[in-house]
Amino acid sequence: MIYLDNAATSFPKPKRVIDAVTRYLKEIGGNPGRAAHASAREASGLVDRTRRLLASLLGNVDPSRIIFTPSTTVALNLAIKGSLKSGDHVLTTSMEHNSVLRPLNGLVKLGVTHSLIPCSSSGELDPADIPPLIQPQTRLIALVHASNVTGNLMPVGEVGKVARERGILLLLDAAQTMGKISIDPEILFVDLLAGPGHKGLLGPMGTGFLYVRPGLELEPLWEGGTGTHSESIKQPETWPERFESGTCNAPGLAGLAEGIAEVQHLGFEAIATNERRLVEILLDGLSQFPGIILYGPEDRRFCTGTLAFNVQELDCAEVAHILDKVYSIAVRSGLHCAPEAHRTIGTFPHGAVRVSVGPYNTEEEMHTFLKAVSEVLEFRCR
Amino acid sequence: MIYLDNAATSFPKPKRVIDAVTRYLKEIGGNPGRAAHASAREASGLVDRTRRLLASLLGNVDPSRIIFTPSTTVALNLAIKGSLKSGDHVLTTSMEHNSVLRPLNGLVKLGVTHSLIPCSSSGELDPADIPPLIQPQTRLIALVHASNVTGNLMPVGEVGKVARERGILLLLDAAQTMGKISIDPEILFVDLLAGPGHKGLLGPMGTGFLYVRPGLELEPLWEGGTGTHSESIKQPETWPERFESGTCNAPGLAGLAEGIAEVQHLGFEAIATNERRLVEILLDGLSQFPGIILYGPEDRRFCTGTLAFNVQELDCAEVAHILDKVYSIAVRSGLHCAPEAHRTIGTFPHGAVRVSVGPYNTEEEMHTFLKAVSEVLEFRCR
Repeated sequence: MIYLDNAATSFPKPKRVIDAVTRYLKEIGGNPGRAAHASAREASGLVDRTRRLLASLLGNVDPSRIIFTPSTTVALNLAIKGSLKSGDHVLTTSMEHNSVLRPLNGLVKLGVTHSLIPCSSSGELDPADIPPLIQPQTRLIALVHASNVTGNLMPVGEVGKVARERGILLLLDAAQTMGKISIDPEILFVDLLAGPGHKGLLGPMGTGFLYVRPGLELEPLWEGGTGTHSESIKQPETWPERFESGTCNAPGLAGLAEGIAEVQHLGFEAIATNERRLVEILLDGLSQFPGIILYGPEDRRFCTGTLAFNVQELDCAEVAHILDKVYSIAVRSGLHCAPEAHRTIGTFPHGAVRVSVGPYNTEEEMHTFLKAVSEVLEFRCR
Repeated sequence: MIYLDNAATSFPKPKRVIDAVTRYLKEIGGNPGRAAHASAREASGLVDRTRRLLASLLGNVDPSRIIFTPSTTVALNLAIKGSLKSGDHVLTTSMEHNSVLRPLNGLVKLGVTHSLIPCSSSGELDPADIPPLIQPQTRLIALVHASNVTGNLMPVGEVGKVARERGILLLLDAAQTMGKISIDPEILFVDLLAGPGHKGLLGPMGTGFLYVRPGLELEPLWEGGTGTHSESIKQPETWPERFESGTCNAPGLAGLAEGIAEVQHLGFEAIATNERRLVEILLDGLSQFPGIILYGPEDRRFCTGTLAFNVQELDCAEVAHILDKVYSIAVRSGLHCAPEAHRTIGTFPHGAVRVSVGPYNTEEEMHTFLKAVSEVLEFRCR
């Protein structure tokens, strides 16, 4: 199989990630923070290590401000629901994922309104479009760092500057960039940052996180046992326990630590350079085929490891189906849980074929993919 | 190590559980429900299989009413927050875990009130105490199936009957019983049932579930991409996707399927018989030692695989510490995230030593444990 669905989850996972999960399940076993015996202490140490590694990756932020969640979606919900109240207004873009749009839509009935900042048909956001949309009650801007459909890299620093000047919080959805681009929330004026453990960070599914700038208050999404302040039925105020009630995915977090270590070993620069090179090959190849429609940024500096295309006169699901069945190439077709993004680029409701590379994809695989697409095109012409 | 902390998480995990997680990470990799390629399809099939196995374990309930969550705590929060509204009243017991008490406490500010049904100093609930506490606005009874401190088995069927007659919902916290006792929600009049994947079901941490009786409506705890109805920013109405937005812990759920299969292979009856036998050995042994205070049910028919005790004149943390350091025996001391339970049995705020057995503990380990405790007692007397 040639796996080109890294925007959904990275594959393959590094051996060290798999080994860490297996070792946890086999040898450690304890529930972190839930007892003082050796097995629970080792478990706690492993989760702490993952938190410190992640904090160091984000420009040495305070580890206690990193909240582990089961997914980016939960992290985004925690950020949105934990920081907003009735009467607040939110600005977000037309390129967002449903993990931002659906919670915002759900909050309308509680009196939280939102507006979409329109992006161009190539998925680009012009920060100059933001100030006119700001209302006195605008409390939050929710911005995707890179589109999960077209890969467009968004001008987060510029948006962050606008937000910080107006006293508006910036929530960054780093689902597609975490582990692939160096992110320093302080430099980018990011107040809240949600990311996955299982995509660019190469860890197991079932892991994600929310980083919250020091000084910012937040309400938890759920309450319960934290292994701390057990004398009280009041949710503790201490970070990060306040937000992590219940048994965590400790084997997954043990794996995530090794995923982060692997990213550090490979290096952001090398990962990004490799992905850009592979995407260049794909873009160069696809753009030469007649009957291919490419979406996404015109300026290739705003490309990431994800791109979207369609084959004229063929349904995207059929293209993906042929690639899977005939060529054993895994891509994802459809709307990618981002209907507004597809509306923006003009592919709603049919969607597009998405190709997303990872650090272990090769040039050879790109050429095999291009050959497969050329054969699909020939087949279509017959 | 002799592991006697199975109430926190089961250990060791069966080889088939570890193998299933490892295989998922190594060979499958795809994100379930997020594409149509072979790897994602195999992933979806595995998650579906886990859901069907769990449904069959619960007396063949409708699998679509089983919502996977990252933990029992999240399942309890979903049940509580998803079914209650301002003005509602909740009845719960004085033996509950903070995973029930803290969300209820958090809801007070939203106008949801609650009352505690007092249990006896041996942790027993008398269902006759319930009717006088019912108010016209009582919407839910939240009941722990077996105490995580003393192991008391609660009269869930009787409580269920009272609840059903009055049109009150019954939420069962099966954290300590799932996989150890046969549970049929229909027979027990249970409307909502929260349980872990990583305790009695022998699966990995990071897995849990909520079962919801057909016909009962529920609001999700978070919204986002579901891989379905992607054309809409409205959260889908279909079960279980409505509640499972975001990437799930697919490797964990693949492991959980094997945990459930292992429980089915061992058999509820054999697991329960073994645990009861081991606890009998502990209770018989401990009750003969002078200076040991035992807590929990007077009638041993209401014992499960968990018991609590204290050593006179020794702090429970010190007892647990000696057992860990000198004897390599893992138990858990303190308040076990259940302050009201410890108040009920008279051990607040110091707590107690908790011993909790699992299907792989042996008689020999029980005798080693008893010998260790007798030496702790001798040491104390010197």
